[in-house]
Order: sequence, then structure tokens, then C-alpha cells
Amino acid sequence: MMTLEDKFKALETENAPGQEGRQSVEDLDTVMRGDKLDGVPVDFSHGDVDAFPPTPGSAEAWNTGFEKGAKQAYTEYRGEAQIREGLANRLGRFTGRAISADTELIITPGTQGALFLALGATVASGTKVAVIEPDYFANRKLVKFFGGDILPIPLHYQGVSSENGPDLNRLEEAFKGGANVFVFSTPNNPTGLVYSPASIEQISSLAEQYNVTVIVDQLYSRMLYSGEVFTHLRACETQPVKLLTIMGPSKTESLSGFRLGTAFGTSDLVDRMERLQAIVSLRAAGYNQSALDTWFQEPSGWMENRVHEHEAIRDDLLKVFRKAGFITAKPQAGSYLFPKLPPLGVDLYTFVRLLRHQAAVTITPGTEFAPGSNDSIRLNFSQDHAAAIEAVKRIIKMTEIYSK
Amino acid sequence: MMTLEDKFKALETENAPGQEGRQSVEDLDTVMRGDKLDGVPVDFSHGDVDAFPPTPGSAEAWNTGFEKGAKQAYTEYRGEAQIREGLANRLGRFTGRAISADTELIITPGTQGALFLALGATVASGTKVAVIEPDYFANRKLVKFFGGDILPIPLHYQGVSSENGPDLNRLEEAFKGGANVFVFSTPNNPTGLVYSPASIEQISSLAEQYNVTVIVDQLYSRMLYSGEVFTHLRACETQPVKLLTIMGPSKTESLSGFRLGTAFGTSDLVDRMERLQAIVSLRAAGYNQSALDTWFQEPSGWMENRVHEHEAIRDDLLKVFRKAGFITAKPQAGSYLFPKLPPLGVDLYTFVRLLRHQAAVTITPGTEFAPGSNDSIRLNFSQDHAAAIEAVKRIIKMTEIYSK
Repeated sequence: MMTLEDKFKALETENAPGQEGRQSVEDLDTVMRGDKLDGVPVDFSHGDVDAFPPTPGSAEAWNTGFEKGAKQAYTEYRGEAQIREGLANRLGRFTGRAISADTELIITPGTQGALFLALGATVASGTKVAVIEPDYFANRKLVKFFGGDILPIPLHYQGVSSENGPDLNRLEEAFKGGANVFVFSTPNNPTGLVYSPASIEQISSLAEQYNVTVIVDQLYSRMLYSGEVFTHLRACETQPVKLLTIMGPSKTESLSGFRLGTAFGTSDLVDRMERLQAIVSLRAAGYNQSALDTWFQEPSGWMENRVHEHEAIRDDLLKVFRKAGFITAKPQAGSYLFPKLPPLGVDLYTFVRLLRHQAAVTITPGTEFAPGSNDSIRLNFSQDHAAAIEAVKRIIKMTEIYSK
Repeated sequence: MMTLEDKFKALETENAPGQEGRQSVEDLDTVMRGDKLDGVPVDFSHGDVDAFPPTPGSAEAWNTGFEKGAKQAYTEYRGEAQIREGLANRLGRFTGRAISADTELIITPGTQGALFLALGATVASGTKVAVIEPDYFANRKLVKFFGGDILPIPLHYQGVSSENGPDLNRLEEAFKGGANVFVFSTPNNPTGLVYSPASIEQISSLAEQYNVTVIVDQLYSRMLYSGEVFTHLRACETQPVKLLTIMGPSKTESLSGFRLGTAFGTSDLVDRMERLQAIVSLRAAGYNQSALDTWFQEPSGWMENRVHEHEAIRDDLLKVFRKAGFITAKPQAGSYLFPKLPPLGVDLYTFVRLLRHQAAVTITPGTEFAPGSNDSIRLNFSQDHAAAIEAVKRIIKMTEIYSK
């Protein structure tokens, strides 16, 4: 049995994105080489909603919700019925399979909330959970928190793109070995890899065959770059018995400050998630839920333009990293880059803190995404285009200053 | 070991406040006696924020937060530093003991969020938790969810007021018997009982003596009626080694639609709560946190007036209930009434559903607050004054229609 102390040790947030302000810098003086590097501070730990502001009309939608009063303040725990109705239609269309607004959809406090509830509804002490590495840092933490056992599945992302993807042999082995749940993100966070149609179909079939519950986090599926294809697992012909799909407007649409997400799929899992939500925080903030009325009905051309602008940043940053010899996979979707650093004379965590202190650049260490990724860093490049390029140049400069 | 099925059975929300819309009414036709009763529908399951609207300036504060952009969208998981600074000052003054904004305070998604994080930070499989009965329904559910064992402590609330309060002998027995945690609300939800200075001091001393962590939910401590005294446990001379106080602006201030709460106290518990918050939903919605700037600095006279208006409703409803012979304790604070029903010819859950279906009155069954309270109902009387009186008259009429 895990003690509370162990449990919370596994939940360390010292290197988690957004918490950098709480890190101490006092001990850096002894290791710092040279002077501070000039430049506009860039925080790559998350997207910059000043550079890419929230969907037009989202604040107005909040105010409309506020003016609705009691009806909007106290919604069902799974979210306001009419808002769910509209969402179910639009998400059903986007993902290629109808959704029942009444039984198959829950509105959550962010996609983080959706992941928490989904894993809380499926993982207890001893539950075996297949987890992709690297993948979103909270997946592993959540499995541990609920007492589950992690079966790690490698994701290949640095090689020839046709050979990239999850190791499906390892996945089948894990399923044979008694995995009850499989959780993964596509587009993958932190690499931007989009699972191919063939992998998605095979995952869906294997999960059906071995009766594994699948939780697929598609948070970034709308930010899809030129020529790429996205496959929705919930639209596959062969379906897992239990499946939850998670999406939300925090990233591409920059609504993170509203804390809104959704999960949709198997109704008895949605029921459980709602019961858990009732003791976690009752509901996603009532007035905020109104902002979901802007989701998947943004002004014409707005989304295309947003994707286009991110693609331009991706291309430029990739060029800078690759020119400097950094192995960096090309993201097919989303706004993350996951470059591999050259060998350094300081450990990764010290380098990350030096970057912030000396070069005004905040990034997230790769170990947040896979225990072995201590040679990689994650950048959310949803930033001011010019400032991001200069900040990446400072990262490269810093690897030279601290080279082995 | 609890299975997931057991775990979620304990989290049933069918009778939870706010979920009544999901109840089936089909089977009521066979038990319903007579016709529907005319009247304005009243939902006593929660306060009516149309009758008592949110604090003046709260929506404006949200919009100010939104306009601040990135800084306010992505706060530390424990909440935006400047907002915490102001809160720590004001909450420290209110509760009679200074609070460190940096280490002793966390902003949460509602006080529900604060309770979830506080119990998550202190209760694991086998932890013994002393729980008052009756008390806020989620307390028991949370303890069960985290795998703890409940040691029930009776609250006396129907007798002579000087003899009312928690059974302190039973509490000491529980502490002797190995209780690790004690969670309770004062003012008590659902009875409105305020723990006396003597009980609070004794609880604090006993907790110190037996090294029990105390979690005290003071959600309703600002809505204190004429002549009543509120005692803050965190201001007692003898202090428990570990103590968390929970408060929020969802009730008296009607900000429930913002989902905001706070917990403050022992810093290593606050640390744990933040780590847990990081995987639960990251943070209370960033823009919403700005509304906390209106908290404890409402316009002059506003709070006094709000309390006064509630006191007038309390007095009138008490009169109506007592005139009809219902045993009903007089709430010293908060907006809950917990009357005992006369013997009925139908079970409590059927009566509750009939009330809603036939009399347009929504209330919460007493069993949500204590397993044995199947003869009581809870009303949140933060409602339109006149409509509330008429609705209580319909409740009384219904007990006559369905009398044994």
C-alpha cells in the first residue's frame, strides 16, 4: 500500500509547466558561466494567449452566461443541458460518430479535469494501465495517484516518419499481459506526432480484442498542419467496448483561462466521471461553460488562419534548431517541439533553471514526459513569432556555453 | 480493497443537490395522491442567485482579469500571487491569525475543490477520519473515495441550545481510537448550528493532544445572525499540529458560478493540495480568480444588508414550520433549515420526488447528510422571500397529503 508521503512524492510539481516561478535560483550563482543574455523573455512552458488571444466572442459569451443568472450558475454536474446539446452535435460531426448529449458527454474543468475524471473512473489499486512514453506528463502521475501500475509503451518519433508511431507489438504484449486501460494523446504531447490511420485502427481493434478501455486525448487535433491526416479512434469500424475521447478549447482556441474541457464516449464511464466530479469541484464554472458556445463555430477563416500562423512558426523554429544540429522531430499538429539537446556539462534541471535565469527562456524538461527523456526539452511555440525565434537562438547559445 | 464498482456506488449522486433534473418521474403516477399544487417553483437544493445576486463588481472583476491576458490565464496552480497576497491579509484579519500568502494559502475551484484537495492530502487507504453526523454530504463520500474509515461523531442540534453541539466525549474516544483526521463544518451544514467557543477550544486542544489533523469548513461563517458569536479554530491558543481552514464566496456572496474557494493553514498540507490540484484541474479558472479581489471588500453595508435579509427569511420560515408542529432547529448562521418531517406513508426519496413533481418544490433528503436522517429534509432558504414562504406551506400541505 502506498503511503500518503509516497503518493505525493510522485506528484512533485517542481519541474511542471507553469510552476517555474516557485523555483529557487540562489544556488545558480556558483554554476553560472558568463553574463545574462539579452532578449525578450519567452515562456515556452505554455502558449502565450497574448500572442494568440482567445476565440473572438468568448468573453462576451461569458458575460451572456453571467447575465443568465441562476440557470447558468448551477448546472448539472456534467454541464448545462443546452450547451451539451450543441457541443454533442458539433463534436460528433468533427469526430465522425454521433454523441448523445444526455448520456455520452461531460463538460469538465479543462481537459486536465477530463483526464483526472476519466482515469479516476477506470483506475484503482492494481489496475494495469498502458502509458505511452513520451506522453503528457500528467498521465503517469494520475495512474500512480489512483494506485494503478504503469506498463510503458515506447513511441518512436525521431526516425523516418513512415516508421514512427507507438510500438504496437509492445502494446499488444501489454494488452495480453492484462492491461485494463490504455491512455494516450494524439497529436502526441510533447512530440507533435499524429498517430497514423493504420495505428489508430490497430489500437482500436486490439483494444476490442483484449477488452481494454481506451482513453484518447485529442486536445490538439484541430491544429493540424498542411498535408497531415488526423484519424479519430471513435470513428473506427471496430470499437473498443469502452472508449472515452477527450478534447477542449484550451490550446488552439486559447481558452485555458476559462478551464473548460469535454469527454465523450461510453455512457457508464461518463456517469462515473460525473459522480466523481460531484465531489471534486461540482462542475466546470457555470458562467464559463457559456464560452463553449463559441467552440467549433469560430468566425469563418479564423481557425485556418490560426493554424497557418502556427505552421509558419513551426517551420522557422525547426530550421533554427536543425541548422544548429539539434535532432528535432517535425510536429504534424499542435504547438509543441521536442528537440534533443547536445551533451551538456550540467544536468538537465540545472540547465533548465539556468535557461530561465540567464537567458529569460522557460522550457519544460523532457523527464516530465518520459523518465528517460533527460536529453530533451519541450517548447510550446504558440508564442510571438519573432520573440520565439530569438529565444530559440538563446537556447542554442546556452547549450554552447554549457557544452560538455 | 475497494473495487471501482464499490467506490462509485458510494458516490451515487441521484439525490445530490442540483441533480434532481436527472431523476425519473415515470413511476410517480401510481403513488401520487390528488392534483398538482399551484405555486412558483422553488429550488431549495441551493441558493437562488437571481434572488440574491453575486457581489457587486464581481462580473467587472472577471472582465478585468480577462483583459490582463496571459498573466491571469496561467497562474501558479495555487493561484495568482497578487490575489493571494490580498486574500491572505483579509482572511487573516477575519479569522484572527496571520496567513502567509506564499506558503499557507491555496485558491481552489470552489470550497468543494478545497475539501477534495484537503482530504486527498490527508486521507489514504485505512486513514481513520472522524466525521460529524449530520454534516455536509460530500465529507463522507470523500473519505470513502480516498479509502479512509469513517468514525461517526453525533451532533446534537434539536435540543436546548446550550446543550447542542458535537458529542465531545465521542470525539475524544475517536481520537484515542486512532483517528488521524477530523473534518467538520461550522456553521454546520445542514443545521445552521455554530460551534460554541468552548467546543471549538476543546476540539483544538484535543486535536493537539492526540495529534489529529483538523479540517474545518467555515463556508458560511460570514452569514452570522443577530446575537450569535463565531469562533475561529485557527485563532485558538492551543493549535492542532496540522490545521486547514476552508472558506469561499459561493454562498453568502453568491459567487458559486465562478467556482472559487480557498484553503489556508499548515504549509506542507497546502503544498500537497497544490500538487494534487496540478493533476486534478491545474488551477481555479484564471480569469475567475480576479473575482476574489471583491471578496471581503464588498461595498459598505452590503454584507450587513444581505445577512439581515436572510435573517428575516429564516425567522418567517421557522415560524411557519414550527406553527405546523415541525421540529426545526433555529439556524445561528448560514441559509440552511433542517426540519424533521412528521411520519409519512411514503419513503423519504419518493416524498422528495413527489414534492418536486407535484408541488414544484425541490429539497435535499436528510440522508445525504447522515445515514440515519431519513426523517429530515434540508432547505437552502437563500430564495425569494415570498416564494419561499409559499413553498414551505406547500411542503407542509404535502406532508398532510402523504401522512401515515
